[in-house]
Amino acid sequence: MKIGVLGTGMVGSTVGAKLVGLGHAVMMGSRTSGNEKAVAWAREAGRGASHGTFADAAAFGEIVFNCTLGEGALNAVRLAGAENLAGKILIDISDPLDFASGMPPSLIFAGNDSLGEQIQRALPETWVVKTLNTINCKVMVDPGRVAGDHDVFMSGNDAEAKARVAEILRDWFGWRSIVDLGDITTARGTECYLILWLRLWRVLGTADFNIRIVR
Amino acid sequence: MKIGVLGTGMVGSTVGAKLVGLGHAVMMGSRTSGNEKAVAWAREAGRGASHGTFADAAAFGEIVFNCTLGEGALNAVRLAGAENLAGKILIDISDPLDFASGMPPSLIFAGNDSLGEQIQRALPETWVVKTLNTINCKVMVDPGRVAGDHDVFMSGNDAEAKARVAEILRDWFGWRSIVDLGDITTARGTECYLILWLRLWRVLGTADFNIRIVR
Repeated sequence: MKIGVLGTGMVGSTVGAKLVGLGHAVMMGSRTSGNEKAVAWAREAGRGASHGTFADAAAFGEIVFNCTLGEGALNAVRLAGAENLAGKILIDISDPLDFASGMPPSLIFAGNDSLGEQIQRALPETWVVKTLNTINCKVMVDPGRVAGDHDVFMSGNDAEAKARVAEILRDWFGWRSIVDLGDITTARGTECYLILWLRLWRVLGTADFNIRIVR
Repeated sequence: MKIGVLGTGMVGSTVGAKLVGLGHAVMMGSRTSGNEKAVAWAREAGRGASHGTFADAAAFGEIVFNCTLGEGALNAVRLAGAENLAGKILIDISDPLDFASGMPPSLIFAGNDSLGEQIQRALPETWVVKTLNTINCKVMVDPGRVAGDHDVFMSGNDAEAKARVAEILRDWFGWRSIVDLGDITTARGTECYLILWLRLWRVLGTADFNIRIVR
């Protein structure tokens, strides 16, 4: 399958490499064509990997992953172009972390909006599904790095799009427990959780962890 | 032991009743003396239960639980009086939920401050320990309502105070897994998590749930 990946950071590189490894054709998109990190990634990821602008990657992908940093996510999606993403699923992994005051970051929204919703509003013809944003990128594509059962969350307005994304999470990445939180406004929940995730990361001394819902 | 409980809502009533049941003398404090809910609670909770103002309850307790709503928590603590709480442990269960725009609530802080920190700043002579704020009040005092292992978090500046609170969580309420997140600024993490908790509550259809950290 042809897949676009927006973002050249850790998340984009890791998700993109996993998708190439699965045999997909993956174009990494960035703000400018010829971006050093995208070029280096495509060279290293090997056959099936390519690079271009956000718009190139959005037009290329049958499915597109948004792996940009939260502060730049909305702009990246605008540069990608609503017309290039129309009728497609956008898997949104971005988190609205605000690093303006240094570490640890705070949130861009106080639970009264979310990047997931903002991106869905910017792309009315696209099925935005927020997922994978509550774990480290290595765990995203290899949940077996964490022992036992643990959960990944999913938010989106369209049941069919979520069913397709659940398949991708299961069949491509190996997720066994996928919790559908509801419509895209529920992305507020997982985006706010990042503030706890960051504290747990520090206390546990590893990013190889996740949470399990217990009843 | 003599214990003060600030707040007459579900959390204060449930925690207070549990403490009375354990044989402690518990005074429920509210903004005004003779508060209807506090009077009714004290009558129902029986021997050992009493009621008074925030200041009365703070002066009465050797340990004090803050069970007020987030929006009123700082004011309740001020009315309780720094002098009445000096040299004591304040177990802060409040969450900074903002109901001004209806349901579901948003956060008073965007992860850049917390009620735990605000209360600690208002009470420099008190050991503020934030805990129990990530679960329903029935689960707070009876973690066995949720099957299997699950975690309660703790944030505070003083190791000795946290050790005492951990004893209380273990010996009085039955908690087996207590995660010390660090100083009081880590309360930002658990307070922000509430936004995810609220969405999980809706999806799961029960408040009898919690999370388990998996590695």
